[in-house]
Amino acid sequence: MNNISFIGSGNVAFHLSKALLSAGHTITSISSRNKSNAKKLAEKVNAKVCDINEIDDTVNLVIIAVSDDAISEIIHEIPSYINCIVHTSGAVSMDVFNNKFENFGVFYPLQSFSKDRKLAISLVPFLIEANGEAFEVELKNLALKISQRAEIMDSESRKHLHLAAVFANNFINLMATEAYNILEGKNIDASLIRPLMIETILRLEDYHPKDMQTGPAKRNDLEVLKKHEELLNSNSKLQSLYRQISQQIMRKYNGSEL
Amino acid sequence: MNNISFIGSGNVAFHLSKALLSAGHTITSISSRNKSNAKKLAEKVNAKVCDINEIDDTVNLVIIAVSDDAISEIIHEIPSYINCIVHTSGAVSMDVFNNKFENFGVFYPLQSFSKDRKLAISLVPFLIEANGEAFEVELKNLALKISQRAEIMDSESRKHLHLAAVFANNFINLMATEAYNILEGKNIDASLIRPLMIETILRLEDYHPKDMQTGPAKRNDLEVLKKHEELLNSNSKLQSLYRQISQQIMRKYNGSEL
Repeated sequence: MNNISFIGSGNVAFHLSKALLSAGHTITSISSRNKSNAKKLAEKVNAKVCDINEIDDTVNLVIIAVSDDAISEIIHEIPSYINCIVHTSGAVSMDVFNNKFENFGVFYPLQSFSKDRKLAISLVPFLIEANGEAFEVELKNLALKISQRAEIMDSESRKHLHLAAVFANNFINLMATEAYNILEGKNIDASLIRPLMIETILRLEDYHPKDMQTGPAKRNDLEVLKKHEELLNSNSKLQSLYRQISQQIMRKYNGSEL
Repeated sequence: MNNISFIGSGNVAFHLSKALLSAGHTITSISSRNKSNAKKLAEKVNAKVCDINEIDDTVNLVIIAVSDDAISEIIHEIPSYINCIVHTSGAVSMDVFNNKFENFGVFYPLQSFSKDRKLAISLVPFLIEANGEAFEVELKNLALKISQRAEIMDSESRKHLHLAAVFANNFINLMATEAYNILEGKNIDASLIRPLMIETILRLEDYHPKDMQTGPAKRNDLEVLKKHEELLNSNSKLQSLYRQISQQIMRKYNGSEL
């Protein structure tokens, strides 16, 4: 796995290629529709820029790091002389490779990447799947060179993991956005709420979240729920969302509904 | 503010009394319906246990740290010779004191406390309100002895802050619970998802959450949304919640709905 080529030059390609370079691997080439991004990333990791059909036949591994809906199309463009290839998506099944290559698999870092933000990649769990056991072990060992945690997981389980990640990232982020919006709407500095959110998540190191639920819905405090809904009178969609989420908490903890 | 008495012996009383003791204050007494809790806490902070009507008339400050719905009743029981008194609730207006005391106010630590878990109280923002400016300044200075951040905030703004805290703590915790449940239902180690949740919150130090939204609803990826709803077929309530939250994201970012 000495020579690695990337297809894609976005957030995932950026963080993975830099981490693999630091771990002693050679990044041979970057291929991307976005030539300017590809050039920038290639300079950072001492790679060349090339088209997909020009990827070296001596490369040990091709890593596809493009958006989910582009993976299938890109696989059609990749020369079949490529021996080992993975994609990095949580949501796309390994079947997408359609047995076109000798060794194919999934190398999924369970994290939300942003180029602007430094990330401790050693803390990112990698979920690995491959069409053969030997390649699977190679991929897992590769992941363990840049991260403390790598596990084998099949496409079916990965689907559920990806669904859970929507709650854990996308939905939590929406809750943060709504909290910020409520505060900013009243000219209250939204940063006040950050230590509370940080503690809410960090304590999950010691506790299961089901044992940490608090608040008016948990304690069936209809008076406070009503007051909160009144505060949201001018935003009927958010008011309805407040009610739906509170109802889910009430069902879980009180067996009742609003 | 040298001698401070607490009414209540729960999580807030526990953390506040310990922090104030460490900051050089004397905790004179603990009053609580739960005598066993009161005794345990009193021993920890070198205080005596006494009934509410026995609180020393020389005490400089009484801090009410009981559940929201008990505050009003407890205020009736407190001798009117008490000179300075605060409650610690985000949701209860300062009007609850009904002008019974010379100096009254609110000393609200914006955090979710648990006795079992160590907490860096210096990072907890305190929101202060009082019936007079001098007392307000005294309370703010008291808060600044145990925390880096204390601000004056009136009851009306605090109501909105408390509503935002429901999103930031209660609702985020529910999202974490649902993520854990999805994983545990498939025998996947739920701790896999923790680094993602931590990063989701920690990056808000640098970014506004509205700029960090990602996922299928954000990019209007109807195919993935449909697949996720199918995975939730056996849990119609959670399926409906998934849909409601996704719709809120779609409205915000795409102006569309499912």
